[in-house]
Amino acid sequence: MPTVYGLRTSGNCYKVQLLLDLLGRPYRWVDTDSAAGATRTPAFLALNPNGKVPLLVLEDGRRLAESNAILCYLAEGSPYVPADPWERARTLQWLFFEQYSHEPCIAVARFVRRWLSPTDARQAEVPALLERGARALDVMEDHLARELFFSGGVFGIADIALFAYTHCAADGGFDLSRWPQIGAWLERVRAQAGFSPMAA
Amino acid sequence: MPTVYGLRTSGNCYKVQLLLDLLGRPYRWVDTDSAAGATRTPAFLALNPNGKVPLLVLEDGRRLAESNAILCYLAEGSPYVPADPWERARTLQWLFFEQYSHEPCIAVARFVRRWLSPTDARQAEVPALLERGARALDVMEDHLARELFFSGGVFGIADIALFAYTHCAADGGFDLSRWPQIGAWLERVRAQAGFSPMAA
Repeated sequence: MPTVYGLRTSGNCYKVQLLLDLLGRPYRWVDTDSAAGATRTPAFLALNPNGKVPLLVLEDGRRLAESNAILCYLAEGSPYVPADPWERARTLQWLFFEQYSHEPCIAVARFVRRWLSPTDARQAEVPALLERGARALDVMEDHLARELFFSGGVFGIADIALFAYTHCAADGGFDLSRWPQIGAWLERVRAQAGFSPMAA
Repeated sequence: MPTVYGLRTSGNCYKVQLLLDLLGRPYRWVDTDSAAGATRTPAFLALNPNGKVPLLVLEDGRRLAESNAILCYLAEGSPYVPADPWERARTLQWLFFEQYSHEPCIAVARFVRRWLSPTDARQAEVPALLERGARALDVMEDHLARELFFSGGVFGIADIALFAYTHCAADGGFDLSRWPQIGAWLERVRAQAGFSPMAA
């Protein structure tokens, strides 16, 4: 049984939980509070020198970091990864979009607003994060006006990755009613058999 | 023949040039100066709604964005992508590391120092970028103390992705002599048959 080191309220960690629950695969979860420094200890850095969760550890001790690489690895051969080479490439396009253009705005706005003090200097970052995050949501809305899911016409790991921080974007100050296609897609994701919600 | 829209001095675009040159595949290159607004025109946004280069356009008009997704697609079936599922996952781990923990510090420090005015307000970001970028280089150095390349023991797309902004990190103010394993690896990359340098 694989082990996942993760923080339940982190969207990046939730991606791995959601995929494993959808696959119906048993796993062990080790709560690892990155916000409290648990990923910067010598013991954790020996597992992942980049000091981040989620981290997947296989039974034989092999370790894999980076949420979206973990999704690709665990989903291989399942209906959540397309078999067609072009659709696989489009899946990866959305996974890299998520980590470069979406998460650094939408997840960070949520972190600053929910986890930091209202007087923290980083609150000043929020307006720029909201502006850049809105552009990422616009790109998703544009795509969802033409397709039901993010690649291959069916639900898959690109949807899991983008769902993780989009569904809780309101925590960061985004008003999701501005993006109705996204709202409908969020419901299509929640309707998947085996869906599990993120911890509150 | 595929078409690449790109800026020759962008590391993200250079990745695609380098892979295509290593593969010996002919391609058409359309210079697209993102720094001068060429990726925000209506014509370009119709090709890539996220307004970024590189963009790969196939002969039949299909389009793929995100440099590392393009690397995966073009390298499939070549020696530059491992066949083994675990090594493929490790390749992806490094590709996501590059886009999340490396490029946003090392490429951005280069951009601010080389492209913006010395009096630009964004110069204030440089010290934090140097600190976070050094952590990413430490993670690479740690890996390279144990392995010659980033996945599968042989040169591949994880090396191409990480080479793109590491080899020119001095432009952003990083002193690469602090990371001797990285220095030796840069030479191993430059020694690959078909290697082409980034435009000056």
